[in-house]
Amino acid sequence: MFEAKIDASVLRECIESITAVVDEGKLRVAEDGLKLRAVDPANVAMVSFELQRDAFDEFRFETGSGSGSEAASESTAATEVGIDFNKLRDILGIGGREEVNLKLDEQVQKLFTRMGSLTYTISLLDPSSLRKEPKVPELEFPVQVVIETEEFRRTVRASEKIGDHIVLGVDGEEFYMEVEGEMDKLRLGLRKEQLIHLTPGTLHSLYSLDYVSAMSKGMSHADNITLNLGKDYPLQVDFEVADGKGKVSYLLAPRIESE
Amino acid sequence: MFEAKIDASVLRECIESITAVVDEGKLRVAEDGLKLRAVDPANVAMVSFELQRDAFDEFRFETGSGSGSEAASESTAATEVGIDFNKLRDILGIGGREEVNLKLDEQVQKLFTRMGSLTYTISLLDPSSLRKEPKVPELEFPVQVVIETEEFRRTVRASEKIGDHIVLGVDGEEFYMEVEGEMDKLRLGLRKEQLIHLTPGTLHSLYSLDYVSAMSKGMSHADNITLNLGKDYPLQVDFEVADGKGKVSYLLAPRIESE
Amino acid sequence: MFEAKIDASVLRECIESITAVVDEGKLRVAEDGLKLRAVDPANVAMVSFELQRDAFDEFRFETGSGSGSEAASESTAATEVGIDFNKLRDILGIGGREEVNLKLDEQVQKLFTRMGSLTYTISLLDPSSLRKEPKVPELEFPVQVVIETEEFRRTVRASEKIGDHIVLGVDGEEFYMEVEGEMDKLRLGLRKEQLIHLTPGTLHSLYSLDYVSAMSKGMSHADNITLNLGKDYPLQVDFEVADGKGKVSYLLAPRIESE
Repeated sequence: MFEAKIDASVLRECIESITAVVDEGKLRVAEDGLKLRAVDPANVAMVSFELQRDAFDEFRFETGSGSGSEAASESTAATEVGIDFNKLRDILGIGGREEVNLKLDEQVQKLFTRMGSLTYTISLLDPSSLRKEPKVPELEFPVQVVIETEEFRRTVRASEKIGDHIVLGVDGEEFYMEVEGEMDKLRLGLRKEQLIHLTPGTLHSLYSLDYVSAMSKGMSHADNITLNLGKDYPLQVDFEVADGKGKVSYLLAPRIESE
Repeated sequence: MFEAKIDASVLRECIESITAVVDEGKLRVAEDGLKLRAVDPANVAMVSFELQRDAFDEFRFETGSGSGSEAASESTAATEVGIDFNKLRDILGIGGREEVNLKLDEQVQKLFTRMGSLTYTISLLDPSSLRKEPKVPELEFPVQVVIETEEFRRTVRASEKIGDHIVLGVDGEEFYMEVEGEMDKLRLGLRKEQLIHLTPGTLHSLYSLDYVSAMSKGMSHADNITLNLGKDYPLQVDFEVADGKGKVSYLLAPRIESE
Repeated sequence: MFEAKIDASVLRECIESITAVVDEGKLRVAEDGLKLRAVDPANVAMVSFELQRDAFDEFRFETGSGSGSEAASESTAATEVGIDFNKLRDILGIGGREEVNLKLDEQVQKLFTRMGSLTYTISLLDPSSLRKEPKVPELEFPVQVVIETEEFRRTVRASEKIGDHIVLGVDGEEFYMEVEGEMDKLRLGLRKEQLIHLTPGTLHSLYSLDYVSAMSKGMSHADNITLNLGKDYPLQVDFEVADGKGKVSYLLAPRIESE
């Protein structure tokens, strides 16, 4: 049994950080909070999400004998439920700036969401119908860049006008983003002192701009993001949600450069 | 001959309450003001509209021998003219916050609309080409609910994300709106004390959400609306326009529940 | 070699006045500023554009032996470069309210645009691939009307709801714009005292509303526009950009009235 109360805008921010990558996923509910890890249908991007219980105004979780999910046998202190996050986001977008009450009823396999006098009930998705939770690959990122989210997002928006792929790289003490079209080219170059943090180095990777664009929408409420970079390597973007009480990581596979 | 002056935003509010249900209709002009009653093409919804002459800053109406319409023989103190309200609304939407001068010339079968230096002239529609003015069915509604328009409209907007039909009902001292999708369900429940007025009862009806959505746009300027309800019965929504100097009623046929 | 610095919003205003008529064109860069003259693909509309060097915060222009363009033999003090203005506008729309650095490198045939840390590079278009710069016809306009841009634009927006062609004319001491649909008609009539200037007369011409609409978007930053009119004659619209340091003229061929 899970019951909680949370600010509607905080919940919306969390859900939007998930729907930037996946429509649905298995949410793991435990005593210390919520967790999710899911890959997109094309297996190119992954989102890892964690929300501490103290992000909630109220939080009550109890595992009972009624929880017949298979996951329960492995981890008796957690419950895994399949959720259509897109549907939840649509409704939260309308509800105004209220507080949201969440109540998970595994007996009837439903999530109840109450905003004021409005109750929204969704059936849980059958976890066996969902993509398997991905293994997180063991990755070591030689370079970290901490950048203002708005600077990153603005560059991504401009890049969309130009091409389909974007290069993220570091050249000495400069971080750069670069996208090339047939006739034109856009480049953001930020020196170490224009960033919040930079590990100097010389490396870059190419990514699909569609995915980077989608992710940049999911991070819009965070002030800063951390980009973890390597040479022809996945990109990992880390940022906080819920006033630091939640953490989101996006992982994106690189594209092989054709040249 | 009809000539009048009215605030542009008041006229726009009135026209929008009409175009929520019909594109065109027969407007009856008389000494005491304007009246319209029209059904939508599918014969599912009806709008009744009344605007008192004191909603106008100036109002002049005279029936003359020139009015050769058949309606004139029945009621010599009124004129009936066919108007394309959609066209009128489009132009009023651009004109700014001015005063509008209206002038009806039945000789040339035109309505002249003047906003500042801009004159908009529409040909009247041939009343014989319009759907017949509907008879108002004799209806008795056991239940009245008075609700804040914004609460109603917000629920309708959220409902659009979920399903095609909406239930409006009363259960004891609670008014509820309910819509079901394949996987999810939205419910607004308001107790008597959360409403402006409620007749207690136990009944509900099902309506097409498309129509309720359209109607909810037409009522956006009213603070409150009155919902008149029955069991598997039409819905009648009443509200005021023009600072109480106008009245609008929507009537909507119920859907037969398939279950 | 051309290098300059200019306010981003001023440059955007200039580019938008050009893209209202053409996507691309030959920009002539000289010591006294920039010039362009281009016709739309259908040869119906023309834009003439001039921006003085003092509209720039910095302006440096030098013709060198490296400029191998054919135009250079005719006018050694100017350079002509083919530019895709649509692409430039898209990027300027994102860059925020910064200053823009422009740098033309004819050796590599590129225009470099820098806004803060963002660099945007476009390849110049081959001037031989562009439509020839039009000859400006010798025109004499018997009538000038100076009107507030917003009054003109609002009437154009309303006209779009009604028809495909618009009449611009003068009747004695009144300027008018008129558009007719099948059932309706819109007319703006402004007397001399409601205008900034009017040459009295009796004449009018008919124009394609699509072109007038497009042009009206390009003039949105100007307070006033001057309409130069004749009888069944082209329309010339003049206005200032860049706080009076730039001038734009649109020329539009008339339509022959079918009646």
